[in-house]
Amino acid sequence: MSKDPGDWLVVKRVVRFGETDAAGVMHFHNLFRWCHEAWEESLERYGMNVNDIFPNGIEKDENLEFALPIVHCQADFRLPIITGNYLDLILYPEKIDMWSFQVKTQFQREGENVALGLIRHVAINAKTRERCPLPTPISRWLESSSIDLGPRPL
Amino acid sequence: MSKDPGDWLVVKRVVRFGETDAAGVMHFHNLFRWCHEAWEESLERYGMNVNDIFPNGIEKDENLEFALPIVHCQADFRLPIITGNYLDLILYPEKIDMWSFQVKTQFQREGENVALGLIRHVAINAKTRERCPLPTPISRWLESSSIDLGPRPL
Amino acid sequence: MSKDPGDWLVVKRVVRFGETDAAGVMHFHNLFRWCHEAWEESLERYGMNVNDIFPNGIEKDENLEFALPIVHCQADFRLPIITGNYLDLILYPEKIDMWSFQVKTQFQREGENVALGLIRHVAINAKTRERCPLPTPISRWLESSSIDLGPRPL
Amino acid sequence: MSKDPGDWLVVKRVVRFGETDAAGVMHFHNLFRWCHEAWEESLERYGMNVNDIFPNGIEKDENLEFALPIVHCQADFRLPIITGNYLDLILYPEKIDMWSFQVKTQFQREGENVALGLIRHVAINAKTRERCPLPTPISRWLESSSIDLGPRPL
Repeated sequence: MSKDPGDWLVVKRVVRFGETDAAGVMHFHNLFRWCHEAWEESLERYGMNVNDIFPNGIEKDENLEFALPIVHCQADFRLPIITGNYLDLILYPEKIDMWSFQVKTQFQREGENVALGLIRHVAINAKTRERCPLPTPISRWLESSSIDLGPRPL
Repeated sequence: MSKDPGDWLVVKRVVRFGETDAAGVMHFHNLFRWCHEAWEESLERYGMNVNDIFPNGIEKDENLEFALPIVHCQADFRLPIITGNYLDLILYPEKIDMWSFQVKTQFQREGENVALGLIRHVAINAKTRERCPLPTPISRWLESSSIDLGPRPL
Repeated sequence: MSKDPGDWLVVKRVVRFGETDAAGVMHFHNLFRWCHEAWEESLERYGMNVNDIFPNGIEKDENLEFALPIVHCQADFRLPIITGNYLDLILYPEKIDMWSFQVKTQFQREGENVALGLIRHVAINAKTRERCPLPTPISRWLESSSIDLGPRPL
Repeated sequence: MSKDPGDWLVVKRVVRFGETDAAGVMHFHNLFRWCHEAWEESLERYGMNVNDIFPNGIEKDENLEFALPIVHCQADFRLPIITGNYLDLILYPEKIDMWSFQVKTQFQREGENVALGLIRHVAINAKTRERCPLPTPISRWLESSSIDLGPRPL
């Protein structure tokens, strides 16, 4: 695959008014929504059909044998983020072991780090809820995201 | 049934900081979350098991033959609502026809109307997504909520 | 101004997993978040600095003499919306009178109407909270959005 | 003060349908909303006026000289949480140094640990955004919450 990881590992986002609180800045837990949505956009731009990865009530659901629950997440907030800010979200996916992985997301505004988020998933069988090997599409995305990429500072 | 509808048709709520925006007041769409949560609390206090009404990924889900999608909702906002406000939510459920119903929620602060929300649901078969008669627990709750109650102004 | 209103009155959005509920479809009140965010994106693409319109805790806040609270909103839901759906949001702004306006947002998926949202704002003085004439940037955006546009069906 | 810390350090919460996602379980980032709301309820039950602690657009705002931005947060998820679950939220506040503190929140369902959240705040001057000593009401609440309490396992 000759695609450039930059194509699917950097996502852009503009901060919206409803994401702020009465202190006038982004309300903290929206960061995790942004992290998850950036990961979804990354999978999509890599070439996945998100309905092969996330369950839904209408299409394909029957065939989804796995789920990817979140077991841990964390965030650091360095600078206040306000309505209208343009953010670059740089994703750092990492396989942890055969049944789990994590995605760090570095948030930058005009090149400056403003926040950092991390979400850790484990793969489970959707019926038994026992852990299982990472599903193929996730493994492929993880592999392509780390290959070619070279060391990236965090 | 000798329970007093007041027991399950008035719900209390305190406004929290994360529900405000940078204008310093409650961000508008939280009102709909409050309406839905008040309805859930009402069903529960009436004596329902919410897992007989709402699907979930773990328990009982297999047996739920219906869904209750929302087809319309609306809200009017009269006075600003801020962090720490104590609100009384007064529910006015109403059967529309054999397959649909709505719940109006009047929001009061110290007896004064501050906002009004309305959510309209239709019953459908969860598999075919064709409309179907209101499920029995919802019919019972609707009936008990209108009987005994007498006229209530809105 | 020779810009084409189409440039700032049609916004795209992909539905994300966290916007669904356990019924497997988009949870209803997210529609209002989408409407508001589409309006913000429209203002921005029209050429506004959103910090001239929405308050924030860091920049320019001191100078914002007006606020634009929402007094009414409503939505109709026609078809289920699921994770990964590509939606076109078509905005229909409308001046109501000298101190209020509304924005209808038509949601389409592959040309088919799936939902409709509407948000009505009134302009107030941020200090006194008395209503006031629509601020200039909003008036300009409303005018440009209706001029040139010709009749559009809804 | 002879109040029992148990009075303000254990909060109850029922999981609502809109807090789930299409995998049928609680969508992860709601946990942080619950942590923050539990902290607000704790302050209130301890005897605080939340408008002395959180800014708002209407009352008292002028006098709030400090803000309490979040600099770090994290969560661990152990068991799936579904609609209708009754949760006990047990708060473990801790002063870190003269300008920062954190609150751990243990989530239990029928005595079993299902999740753990942690939020760390720093006190800053609301105008200069330089860090400042913890405001008196927060110091008092932290002190009362650790005194009398004895060792509590986590």
